[in-house]
Amino acid sequence: MADEQDVRALDYLYEAGLLKRYRRTGWVVAGVAAPESIADHSHRAAIVAAVVAELEGADPQRSAFLALFHDTQESRLTDIPYIGKRYLKAASNAEVTADQTAGMPEGLARLIGGTESEYEARESAEAVCARDADKLECLLQAVEYREQGTDTQAWIDTSFAALKTSSAQRLAKLALERTPLAWMHEARDAKSPK
Amino acid sequence: MADEQDVRALDYLYEAGLLKRYRRTGWVVAGVAAPESIADHSHRAAIVAAVVAELEGADPQRSAFLALFHDTQESRLTDIPYIGKRYLKAASNAEVTADQTAGMPEGLARLIGGTESEYEARESAEAVCARDADKLECLLQAVEYREQGTDTQAWIDTSFAALKTSSAQRLAKLALERTPLAWMHEARDAKSPK
Amino acid sequence: MADEQDVRALDYLYEAGLLKRYRRTGWVVAGVAAPESIADHSHRAAIVAAVVAELEGADPQRSAFLALFHDTQESRLTDIPYIGKRYLKAASNAEVTADQTAGMPEGLARLIGGTESEYEARESAEAVCARDADKLECLLQAVEYREQGTDTQAWIDTSFAALKTSSAQRLAKLALERTPLAWMHEARDAKSPK
Amino acid sequence: MADEQDVRALDYLYEAGLLKRYRRTGWVVAGVAAPESIADHSHRAAIVAAVVAELEGADPQRSAFLALFHDTQESRLTDIPYIGKRYLKAASNAEVTADQTAGMPEGLARLIGGTESEYEARESAEAVCARDADKLECLLQAVEYREQGTDTQAWIDTSFAALKTSSAQRLAKLALERTPLAWMHEARDAKSPK
Amino acid sequence: MADEQDVRALDYLYEAGLLKRYRRTGWVVAGVAAPESIADHSHRAAIVAAVVAELEGADPQRSAFLALFHDTQESRLTDIPYIGKRYLKAASNAEVTADQTAGMPEGLARLIGGTESEYEARESAEAVCARDADKLECLLQAVEYREQGTDTQAWIDTSFAALKTSSAQRLAKLALERTPLAWMHEARDAKSPK
Amino acid sequence: MADEQDVRALDYLYEAGLLKRYRRTGWVVAGVAAPESIADHSHRAAIVAAVVAELEGADPQRSAFLALFHDTQESRLTDIPYIGKRYLKAASNAEVTADQTAGMPEGLARLIGGTESEYEARESAEAVCARDADKLECLLQAVEYREQGTDTQAWIDTSFAALKTSSAQRLAKLALERTPLAWMHEARDAKSPK
Repeated sequence: MADEQDVRALDYLYEAGLLKRYRRTGWVVAGVAAPESIADHSHRAAIVAAVVAELEGADPQRSAFLALFHDTQESRLTDIPYIGKRYLKAASNAEVTADQTAGMPEGLARLIGGTESEYEARESAEAVCARDADKLECLLQAVEYREQGTDTQAWIDTSFAALKTSSAQRLAKLALERTPLAWMHEARDAKSPK
Repeated sequence: MADEQDVRALDYLYEAGLLKRYRRTGWVVAGVAAPESIADHSHRAAIVAAVVAELEGADPQRSAFLALFHDTQESRLTDIPYIGKRYLKAASNAEVTADQTAGMPEGLARLIGGTESEYEARESAEAVCARDADKLECLLQAVEYREQGTDTQAWIDTSFAALKTSSAQRLAKLALERTPLAWMHEARDAKSPK
Repeated sequence: MADEQDVRALDYLYEAGLLKRYRRTGWVVAGVAAPESIADHSHRAAIVAAVVAELEGADPQRSAFLALFHDTQESRLTDIPYIGKRYLKAASNAEVTADQTAGMPEGLARLIGGTESEYEARESAEAVCARDADKLECLLQAVEYREQGTDTQAWIDTSFAALKTSSAQRLAKLALERTPLAWMHEARDAKSPK
Repeated sequence: MADEQDVRALDYLYEAGLLKRYRRTGWVVAGVAAPESIADHSHRAAIVAAVVAELEGADPQRSAFLALFHDTQESRLTDIPYIGKRYLKAASNAEVTADQTAGMPEGLARLIGGTESEYEARESAEAVCARDADKLECLLQAVEYREQGTDTQAWIDTSFAALKTSSAQRLAKLALERTPLAWMHEARDAKSPK
Repeated sequence: MADEQDVRALDYLYEAGLLKRYRRTGWVVAGVAAPESIADHSHRAAIVAAVVAELEGADPQRSAFLALFHDTQESRLTDIPYIGKRYLKAASNAEVTADQTAGMPEGLARLIGGTESEYEARESAEAVCARDADKLECLLQAVEYREQGTDTQAWIDTSFAALKTSSAQRLAKLALERTPLAWMHEARDAKSPK
Repeated sequence: MADEQDVRALDYLYEAGLLKRYRRTGWVVAGVAAPESIADHSHRAAIVAAVVAELEGADPQRSAFLALFHDTQESRLTDIPYIGKRYLKAASNAEVTADQTAGMPEGLARLIGGTESEYEARESAEAVCARDADKLECLLQAVEYREQGTDTQAWIDTSFAALKTSSAQRLAKLALERTPLAWMHEARDAKSPK
């Protein structure tokens, strides 16, 4: 592989580092004191995608892979809040991805580009699950921030309404009935493992 | 699926939320003012795994999947710093994963448990790439924190020395020669896309 | 005055509160650990505008007023980083201001709208000084962040090159020769005031 | 202009940078996790002053100018909390301003000093509006922090009681009836601008 | 004293600096946005110990001294959260202290080691008061974080139940009836001291 | 003990909680991104006092006790930076302590008041060591912040010059030769304890 291709692959990894620095804008607007990063969100979204896909009988690994990359264009587009969408016309994720992968080894460019096109097409079961994972992750986080004092009801309602799969809907309903740390309190009362 | 299994699946997702709150302990020790979370690290590690596996001719999706989950036991074990390992004897990741997945739908438990066992076995090409991704991600972050003023040389050296694949070693060498924002300065000078 | 007009005036003040929450995106990209807000920047920019205008023989109060409002559209547009400008086509500041001031008492809408149009026209001496203040403020902050460990040379160079008035250029040159806390060390050594 | 005068003007701008770093002490006492800076407060206070002055038929530009500088002495005095005032006897703002402007070009010293003396005299309509802006801004922020989980009722009550102009009182009453993000939810439901 | 012994004494002081950087893990789990450090907790715990011991007729200075050091082993063990104790078997505090004080001047090693053994033995009145101080401090902090929006009831209940001395129990009951800033509001209404 | 006395004792403990929230002002001025609290400083200062006193042949427990309380008046006085001392005339620590302890059980008031008077008198060996601890702690922290990128040389020089005891001077000299994490790197290379 040519050295210049290596440089482009490396640059992509440095670029992905921006996703750790950018806070999710919606939470900044909501007034959360120390909001999560885009990477934070994407990490759990990928795990949620695996779980939802498994429950739906889709390929969990593929769905997680789509979710892993679903916000990677935001290193260039930033995370535009709802109100901003009235005023900003963004290049498509496909255009951004093309720039991000230009000059990479061809297989790598195809691998990354493929996640973008499948996710945006909203057709495969894996894409549908990954999109639900994006919303369900947001709902879980909204519940967590609500427990920490911030009013996030608008985020909960919007996320809930956007869910498509019955598994994600079922988990979301449960999430509203159960508290985020319930698992820990139960584990605390369980017998010690040794 | 029984409701109790849903609860266990949901609880796993809430538990994964802790990975956003826990800071990577090594950076706290190093004195970084606002260190990344475990989820931050895991997100880019999964992307790095996909890239390294692709370059190595392994399955990038599987490798990313292993990296995605590789620190999920730390919601219960915390991120123990190097010095702490002299004083703390931890349950195995297998034991923690067993507790985390107990009561889940069987397919889901097997899916998650399978990432743990393959990653720990260090045998498959995908596991080797995922482990290199863990180290290479740390090296990239160390370079970034160094540019932001903190002395992270010890982390750079340790991470570099631990790399096994030639692709990861090649990218690591490049990472030390190139600055984290070089891609942006080059993109800035490029022609506008429209 | 009709109550609805009051509501619109009040809403403008709540909207301006977002400028305290939004971090200046450039510093996030640069890796500053706890970057200033847009309001932080705008406050000193307005003071800089008064100083530069006074030195240039322009109206300092007018220039400060222009600088005070110069980024207020970012409550809806966000602070788009340089790289983002390749991918995002933003509504004009005039359009955003029109939305922000719609329904306000007419005098108030004209007052706010007038700052936008004068600033964007870049013609009056006061607008030129306010624009220089925007850049000079950024340069001062870049020097301060550099002293705190982050490499901000690119911001210093870009800001310096954009200055138009000889007063701003003179102050910028001095800023690079003198350290941000020099005034304090000198005041410390001065005689006590009482 | 002599070079030494330039240095003093520049030093004033560096000194103003401290207002970005100092947190408003009252919010620290209240337990707000990431409190705003003095500059944050002053920026919106200046905008509030323009609005209130316009509604009161006073000169909005002058009132904003007074508000812009109204806390600039705190770079030397710090933001002393209420309880601290029982124990600390502070130099007058006039004395601090005299030190801050000593050695500056005479016109600039007079410009800055003039804001201090007019604001402290509490006589001109513009000073009265600027003082109301200081209080109204605090009330708005208190409402915002309350929505984010902190009990700030004492700050709301104290700020409300201190307002003098009927415009500020009217806006304050509205502020307590309306939520900080109401404007955004309404804009979200409005037709797209294009 | 040999130079090597000085180095070991100095290293102990640098090591203690880690306690300022490590956040108390329980609050991270609870979702507090900017949690206190171990040093923060230990400082007030030592003051609480002095107060409780004085009220109980024990030696306040000794009890404060025990509390001052009671978490110093956490520079090596970290602050393991409740759930983590199921999975981590830690070396004893005695073992850690032995390592921390190895090579120090003998009197110093004995001084520090003595706090550990007395505190862990739970026998002397001073140790009992210091242990109550650890719990009462946690309860006070939990009340403070609750006022700032986070649900900390589980921490309040657990801390309360662990108190042994009647003085600490009495103060804890009062703490739940009175608000953290009551003292300030009363001081505010009192006559000025001059 | 009368209930009112309990309330005063409790209020003192809540008041001490402010020391966790107040950042050390000098570091804010220096531009440290996330500066330590007054409680953070006081905790290590008390440990330093014990070490220095032990090395000097004074009573380490008494010296630590003095250091523990040495900044407790700052809950009312705040931490006034050097430049502020030119403009603020503070009540004496004795006056503040008298207010803080008014109404407490007499023994408790005497205990706390005694630390203030002995520390301020600067006569006992324990007071001299506690004062050196205040300075040496500041020097250690300055070295640590320097390693993290901020220029703190002025703080190092001032602290060093103020030291009185030969033990503190010796440790300070060593602190400048040795890095803050040296102990950890050495412990890392040592044999495992088990």
